Amino acid sequence: MRDVAIIGVGLSKFGERWDSGIKELMAEAGLMALEDANISSNEIEMIFGGTMASGRFMGQEHVAALMSDQLGLNNIPAVRIENACASGGSALRLGYIAVSSGIHDIVVVGGVEKMTDVTASEATTALGGAGDQEWELFQGITFPGLYAMMAKRHMYEYGTTEEMLASVAVKNHANAVKNKYAQFHKNLTIEEVMKSKVVSDPLKLLDCSPISDGAAAVVLAPLERARKYNDTPIKILASSQARDTLRLAERDTLTGIKATSIAAEKAYRQAKITPKDVSIAEVHDCFTIAEIMAMEDLGFYKKGKAGKAIMDGETALGSKLSVNTSGGLKGCGHPVGATGVKQAVEVVWQLRGEAGDRQVNGANIGLTHNVGGSGATSVVHVYKRAD
Amino acid sequence: MRDVAIIGVGLSKFGERWDSGIKELMAEAGLMALEDANISSNEIEMIFGGTMASGRFMGQEHVAALMSDQLGLNNIPAVRIENACASGGSALRLGYIAVSSGIHDIVVVGGVEKMTDVTASEATTALGGAGDQEWELFQGITFPGLYAMMAKRHMYEYGTTEEMLASVAVKNHANAVKNKYAQFHKNLTIEEVMKSKVVSDPLKLLDCSPISDGAAAVVLAPLERARKYNDTPIKILASSQARDTLRLAERDTLTGIKATSIAAEKAYRQAKITPKDVSIAEVHDCFTIAEIMAMEDLGFYKKGKAGKAIMDGETALGSKLSVNTSGGLKGCGHPVGATGVKQAVEVVWQLRGEAGDRQVNGANIGLTHNVGGSGATSVVHVYKRAD
Repeated sequence: MRDVAIIGVGLSKFGERWDSGIKELMAEAGLMALEDANISSNEIEMIFGGTMASGRFMGQEHVAALMSDQLGLNNIPAVRIENACASGGSALRLGYIAVSSGIHDIVVVGGVEKMTDVTASEATTALGGAGDQEWELFQGITFPGLYAMMAKRHMYEYGTTEEMLASVAVKNHANAVKNKYAQFHKNLTIEEVMKSKVVSDPLKLLDCSPISDGAAAVVLAPLERARKYNDTPIKILASSQARDTLRLAERDTLTGIKATSIAAEKAYRQAKITPKDVSIAEVHDCFTIAEIMAMEDLGFYKKGKAGKAIMDGETALGSKLSVNTSGGLKGCGHPVGATGVKQAVEVVWQLRGEAGDRQVNGANIGLTHNVGGSGATSVVHVYKRAD
Repeated sequence: MRDVAIIGVGLSKFGERWDSGIKELMAEAGLMALEDANISSNEIEMIFGGTMASGRFMGQEHVAALMSDQLGLNNIPAVRIENACASGGSALRLGYIAVSSGIHDIVVVGGVEKMTDVTASEATTALGGAGDQEWELFQGITFPGLYAMMAKRHMYEYGTTEEMLASVAVKNHANAVKNKYAQFHKNLTIEEVMKSKVVSDPLKLLDCSPISDGAAAVVLAPLERARKYNDTPIKILASSQARDTLRLAERDTLTGIKATSIAAEKAYRQAKITPKDVSIAEVHDCFTIAEIMAMEDLGFYKKGKAGKAIMDGETALGSKLSVNTSGGLKGCGHPVGATGVKQAVEVVWQLRGEAGDRQVNGANIGLTHNVGGSGATSVVHVYKRAD
C-alpha cells in the first residue's frame, strides 16, 4: 500500500444557494480543487462522488457521471457512493483505497447535496431514509427524534445539561463567523439556543444543523508524486470505516456511537498516534449531542466528560484541540453528501496554514469524523502535513 | 494485484414480489450466496451494495448498511454504490478492486431494487434520474424515448428492422422460460412483439425490459484462498468501467455506446482474450436495441451486422456464443441495482455447469456487460473457471 496525499481542495459556499443547482455547485468546488492541485483534467483517472439523496431532493441519480461531465472528465470511471450523511467520508475512503492500492494514481473525490429545492417536510422525510424506513421513520420518528433519545439518555446517565448541548452550537457558530464558506455568520449565546423552539425535546432548533446546499472536492495522489503538483501535500495517515446496526433500537448503547469507537481505534492504530496527538478535528455535529458523543467516542474525553469540557471552552478555536474550526455541520452547514469531503478540505487548509482568521497556530495532526444516519456508519480519517 | 475469484452466488426470484420488501429480497440472495460459498458471516470484511433509486422507490437510503444488517454483518464497512442501472456492475468492480489490491480478503457484492411499490409513472420518472434530469427528463423524454432515438438512427444507418429488434425479445424470453428465477415464463413470437403497444416508436412494450423486484449477491475472495471455500471458483479475468457523456445529445454517435467499446477494449486486454474467445455473455438488453448495439460495441459483430445475426439465431442458447442465457433484462427482469450482479451469478452458474436446462455445454469464458443510463456508464467483466 502506498502513502496517499491530498494535493488539491475546493469548496462551494454553503447555504441556501438559490442561485445554483447541483451542477453549478459541483463545478464550483470541483474546478477549484483541480486548480488548487495545478492539475489538468486529463490526468484524473477516476471520480468518487458522495451524495445521499439526490433522487429525493432533485430526481437525479447517476450523480458521479454528472459530476464528471461538469468537470469535463469523460471516459474515466465515476461512481456515486452513498452512506447517508457519511457519503462524503465513504467516498474519500474509497478514493484513498484506489490510490493506496496502486489501481489509480490521481482521483477526485467529490461530495454534493442540493437540499433546498424541496420543502422542509420533504427534506426531513428524505433524511429519514438514513435510518430504517420501516422500523423508524414509518413509526413516526425523524432524525431529531433519534438524536433526542440519545441526548436524553446521555443526560440521564452522565448529568449532561441542555446548556452543555447549547455550548456546542455557540462554539461552532463562533468559528463559522470566521469562515466565508459557512452558511451562518451569526454569533449565538447559550440563552438564544436555550430559548429557540423545541424540535424534539431536549433538542431545540439551534441544536440542529440546517438544511443546506453545497459541494466539496479533494484531489488525491500518491505521496511520492504529490510535490509535482503542490508544495504542501497533506498526507492521509489513516482511513477507516465501521458500522453498527442501522436501527437505534438494536444498539448496545444509546449514549455513544460504537461505529465511531471502532473506526477511531483502527484509525489511531494505522496512524500510529493517540487521541492526544490530534490538534484539530472536524467532527460530525449534526445535532449538538452528536459532537459531545463524538468527543467521547473518539477518545478525546472520558465518557460523560465532554459536555462540560466543551462548555468550559476546552475545544474552542486556538485550544490545544480545536474542534470544528470550519463551524462544523451546525455553523458551516450540512449539505449531507458534501459534509465528509468538506471536513477534509477544512483540515487541509488548517494543516497548510491557509485557514485565515480561524487558523490554529501549530496545527499538526488533523482528524475528520463523518457519521451516517444515527450511527450505522462512521468514517474516520487522520491527516498530517507531509514532511 | 492479486487474482480474484467468485466463491459463492445467490439470487432471489425476480418479478413482482408482492410478498417481499427490500430486506427480504436482500436476505434471500445474500444468505444463499454465503451458503453457496460455505462461509461464515464473521469472515466477511466489507459489503459493496448496488442500488439505483431506493430513495425514490421506497424512501430508503443507506442501503448497504441495511443489507449488512439483514445478513447479520455488523461492524464491517458497507457502502452503497450507485451508477443508475450499472450500480450492480460498478459495485462488483469496486469489490474486485478491494480484494485484488489486498485491502480486503472476503467481500460481498450485493445488488437490489424493489421497484413495484410505486406506480408505473413514478417508476418511469425515478428511472429518468439515470439521465440528465434538467436537459432530458424535464424536456419530456423518458428512457424508452432515449433508446428509441438510438434505434431509429441504427435503423436509418444500417437497415436494422423492427423484426430484428423483436427477435432479441423472442430469444431472451425463450431462455427465461428455462430459468426458475426469471420474471417471465412465456415464449414470445416476433408477431406478438410487433403487435404489442408502441411505447416510443419504434420500441413496443415487448421491446422493453420490465419493472422488477429482485436481488443478487456474490462473494469474492483471493483466488489463492478460493478453494478453501469452493471446489469450482470462478476467476475474474478482467474488470473495467468507462464513461461517456450523461446527455445523449452530446455523444459522438447514437448508434453505439462508446463507453462500452472503451470498457470492452480494456477488458479484453486485461483478460488477454479476443471477443472470439467468449462463449457466454450476459449483455444489457434494457431495450431490444440495446442488445443489438451491445453485440457490436463488444466486438462480437461488425457495426450494423448484429440485428440480422440475432434474428438468424446465431446467439441463441447453445450457440458458439450464447447471449443472455438467463433471459437477460428483458426475460429475467430488471431490478435495476441487482442486474449487474445477477449477470455475474448467471455466468458463474454457466461456467460451473450448474445452469440446468439452459446449460451451455463447454462454456469456457463468460462476459458480463452492464450499462448505466443511456450509456454514460458501462461496466464489463470477464470470467473463467479457475484451472
